[in-house]
Amino acid sequence: MSSDHERLSRIRFILVAPSHPGNIGAAARAMLTMGLGQLVLIDPRRFPDPEAVALASGATNVLDAARIVASLDEALAGCVLAVGLSARPREFAGRVLSARAAAIEAVAHAARADVAFVFGTEMSGLSNDELARCSAVATIPANPDFGSLNLAAAVQVVAYELRVAVTGGDVWRAPQFLPATADEVEALHAHAATTLVAMRFLNPRMPKRLMPRLRRLFARAGLEKEEVNILRGILARIDEILRR
Amino acid sequence: MSSDHERLSRIRFILVAPSHPGNIGAAARAMLTMGLGQLVLIDPRRFPDPEAVALASGATNVLDAARIVASLDEALAGCVLAVGLSARPREFAGRVLSARAAAIEAVAHAARADVAFVFGTEMSGLSNDELARCSAVATIPANPDFGSLNLAAAVQVVAYELRVAVTGGDVWRAPQFLPATADEVEALHAHAATTLVAMRFLNPRMPKRLMPRLRRLFARAGLEKEEVNILRGILARIDEILRR
Repeated sequence: MSSDHERLSRIRFILVAPSHPGNIGAAARAMLTMGLGQLVLIDPRRFPDPEAVALASGATNVLDAARIVASLDEALAGCVLAVGLSARPREFAGRVLSARAAAIEAVAHAARADVAFVFGTEMSGLSNDELARCSAVATIPANPDFGSLNLAAAVQVVAYELRVAVTGGDVWRAPQFLPATADEVEALHAHAATTLVAMRFLNPRMPKRLMPRLRRLFARAGLEKEEVNILRGILARIDEILRR
Repeated sequence: MSSDHERLSRIRFILVAPSHPGNIGAAARAMLTMGLGQLVLIDPRRFPDPEAVALASGATNVLDAARIVASLDEALAGCVLAVGLSARPREFAGRVLSARAAAIEAVAHAARADVAFVFGTEMSGLSNDELARCSAVATIPANPDFGSLNLAAAVQVVAYELRVAVTGGDVWRAPQFLPATADEVEALHAHAATTLVAMRFLNPRMPKRLMPRLRRLFARAGLEKEEVNILRGILARIDEILRR
């Protein structure tokens, strides 16, 4: 099995004739945030360009390594899967996938072969001829009345889906604290009931739903050992005050 | 059950002290592409601003409707769930969710109540105090060595996940053609076998794996009626040529 890094390294992003160098830089940044580094530019209007560097915001190694080619055939050379992005329905007879499904499929191929995602121009996307060169078309679910994602925004969404597909979407965890044991929680409830009775807040002859509601609240929260200690400390302080 | 539109309309995006009006505009565009319209700005450095309008690229109704407030408390008023975005691990004791899990949870709440996603400043994200005001923290899976998404890019990813959570990620479909029936496919294979024998490409006494391979290919493709007709047309033309 390939490592996550190896699989991401086999995925190239191809931008067809991008007009704005800022979009190239923002796309490079978006790719690198998700661990992708292979950028291919077909006939960019202005590149290299200081605006691309500015928008890359540190992802200059992706820009420096970008390949510039003259045609889509050249850009796709060696790929076993080419996914073209399209926002709108086309007369394309091939498969139409969601960005998520396309990412999952691409990552499966990338275990052993090169794959590509192809993004069209800012103004009009991919031509029908360009889409016909792709094995599948992917579309990002969007507002039907305003579906025009910025080029770098579309790159960000696809790169994000690829990273989630590769890594399973693992994220950092909150600091872990020791959970309270069942007996610690029971002792807390017993203590609380006693104190609430002593406070004359809970009437033991007409307890109503108070204790079950508190139980439900704390069960849902999943009490930690230290939290039980804090709550029992509060109860003990109330006990002291009541004994005065 | 609320409609998709109603649920999306109950989700607000809060930007804390954004420095660059361009990012506000790009965020408005990203939101509208996914059907979101409620933008709240806490103490923006420059707003309104022509750069915001330029980057909104038509999503000016979202900018025009943006609320400007002075504090996070004011921004969060009325929300039952507040999700703060954070790229890096924090001493926050609450729940840490992936952007996807947070979107699913937010959409469930948005069936009947208001929810918020809170984005920090471009330079340093949300402060610990701000995160402590949130019910949960969400994080976008990213490259550990270069995790700094542009503010509008982060807004795009979260908005995209919300739309997928609301709509189930439905996308447009390729034009549907009539699939071939089993008997049409069998007739094609029979015709192909006959013609290939006549062409002396297939030796009926040593057929090897040719026909099973062709079967496998066409089964995988899922033949349409019209494609069967085209293939049989080609075979018929070969038959004619052989009869000359």
